[in-house]
Amino acid sequence: MRAQAEDCHPDMRAVLQNLLSSGGKRIRPTLGLLIGNMLGADLDKTITLGAAVEMLHTATLVHDDLIDGALLRRGTPTLNSRWAPAATVLTGDFLFAKAAKLAAESDCLPLMRLFAETLATIVNGELTQMFSSRGLIKREEYYRRIYAKTASLFEMSARAAAMISPVDDKTVSAMQVFGYEIGMAFQIVDDILDFTGEQATVGKPVGSDLLQGLVTLPTLYYIESHPDDLEVRNLAKDGGSIDEEKMKNLVISIQSSDSIQKSINEANQFVERGLQVLLPFKAGVERAALEELARYIVHRRT
Amino acid sequence: MRAQAEDCHPDMRAVLQNLLSSGGKRIRPTLGLLIGNMLGADLDKTITLGAAVEMLHTATLVHDDLIDGALLRRGTPTLNSRWAPAATVLTGDFLFAKAAKLAAESDCLPLMRLFAETLATIVNGELTQMFSSRGLIKREEYYRRIYAKTASLFEMSARAAAMISPVDDKTVSAMQVFGYEIGMAFQIVDDILDFTGEQATVGKPVGSDLLQGLVTLPTLYYIESHPDDLEVRNLAKDGGSIDEEKMKNLVISIQSSDSIQKSINEANQFVERGLQVLLPFKAGVERAALEELARYIVHRRT
Repeated sequence: MRAQAEDCHPDMRAVLQNLLSSGGKRIRPTLGLLIGNMLGADLDKTITLGAAVEMLHTATLVHDDLIDGALLRRGTPTLNSRWAPAATVLTGDFLFAKAAKLAAESDCLPLMRLFAETLATIVNGELTQMFSSRGLIKREEYYRRIYAKTASLFEMSARAAAMISPVDDKTVSAMQVFGYEIGMAFQIVDDILDFTGEQATVGKPVGSDLLQGLVTLPTLYYIESHPDDLEVRNLAKDGGSIDEEKMKNLVISIQSSDSIQKSINEANQFVERGLQVLLPFKAGVERAALEELARYIVHRRT
Repeated sequence: MRAQAEDCHPDMRAVLQNLLSSGGKRIRPTLGLLIGNMLGADLDKTITLGAAVEMLHTATLVHDDLIDGALLRRGTPTLNSRWAPAATVLTGDFLFAKAAKLAAESDCLPLMRLFAETLATIVNGELTQMFSSRGLIKREEYYRRIYAKTASLFEMSARAAAMISPVDDKTVSAMQVFGYEIGMAFQIVDDILDFTGEQATVGKPVGSDLLQGLVTLPTLYYIESHPDDLEVRNLAKDGGSIDEEKMKNLVISIQSSDSIQKSINEANQFVERGLQVLLPFKAGVERAALEELARYIVHRRT
């Protein structure tokens, strides 16, 4: 990833190096690396693919933070909090270009198509969310949203790693399903941590999704079991515009309700379906590492 | 191109249809179509490639207009003049994704690499221009800038069309050179029209580049032959910050100087070198169409 930042303007290079060093769990490339390792893919290609996936992810984060006006990411100031919007837009574009270049190095055309389609899915998801009214949504809309936002890139990382491996189409599909299931679980856990996490570790205020009018799974469960709750009726009526004090009360109600446990159960179900997919593969250290990754996703605290 | 806008949010679809219908000369895809036609490429593939090139071009324009705060493009309001920056950023990203998807349909891996590299060149060029101080630049810097901004995509369109044709590497290189030469000429003529064009046809105020502190070829020639001119010395001293009245005087001085003719001569030289490249190819209607395109580039008025 750092090598991709070498042939650009020195000021830009420093910014990219900083951006690429700022951490993150690197969970999307890890997923691809473990699958490539299990299926016997060429190591260099798997690493290049991992770098492409992580750069694509970073590019979308740079544009997202600009769009949301977010000031912090992973506990450090975002690019847009320090730079002009123009430079931030172009930095994201540069990362897209470099991610596409790395993906092209896979020498695998279907993978290039998958790469482009995944980018379109992610961006279209963000546009849909932007155009949609805030407030109440249906459960199906929530699943579509978290697929576009998160699971699509997990799915791509897993499927692409299988594509560059010496395996049949059935195995490629199985890995795609594994990526999908743990990607869905990952975002559900993210949405739970928004209610239950420590502000210091999550890196944003508790309940910030709902305070911004974004309804996620814990809220959906709460609405289902408390349809006559005053705050819920306000939310249904006014979308994201009800006052902050009432929203904070709703956050507290959700935190102490069984909606959190229901959401955890659902994340667990996604992970279990993912683990089922792995069963036909040869037991051993490679499969065990993937199982470990899947379980980490529901037990993590950040 | 319109088909690419079908699988997205309805509001977005309307915007994309509008954006793709807003005209423009479509000169970059035309270049590729004529080359593909001359070299015997598959017509469907050539058309898909042309759509990919034009969508990539449109994506960069959408982000450029946002960055420059431009309100008009091709005489109609820009996306950013009517929409929030967030939606404009995402629209550009969506077009990048769809352009990459179209490029992947070429079934030609080197073309995908070329596509990603060209995007990186264009974006890096914009970043370099943003970080560079305004005011005086060297001639080499001007050439580097117009290569990144314009000639790189002409070069890509021409080279990619040859890549998907049943021809040898030498022919691919020849077409790349042809695209480069007429792409350089195209941008030089754009920079001349900024001084000599009618505001109504060019779509922006006369001399707007220089008024924004952007030094182009006519100004470079003027500086070389009038090093002791008061406005030139001010420009050298203060970069883009000298007052507007003085800049307007400099624009008038350049318009009535021989710097315009020198710049036209230089654009002609680029086109002539391009035409030389075509000579070894079989004379006929296909080659004649490419020669016509090259000549149009220096004689156009918009």
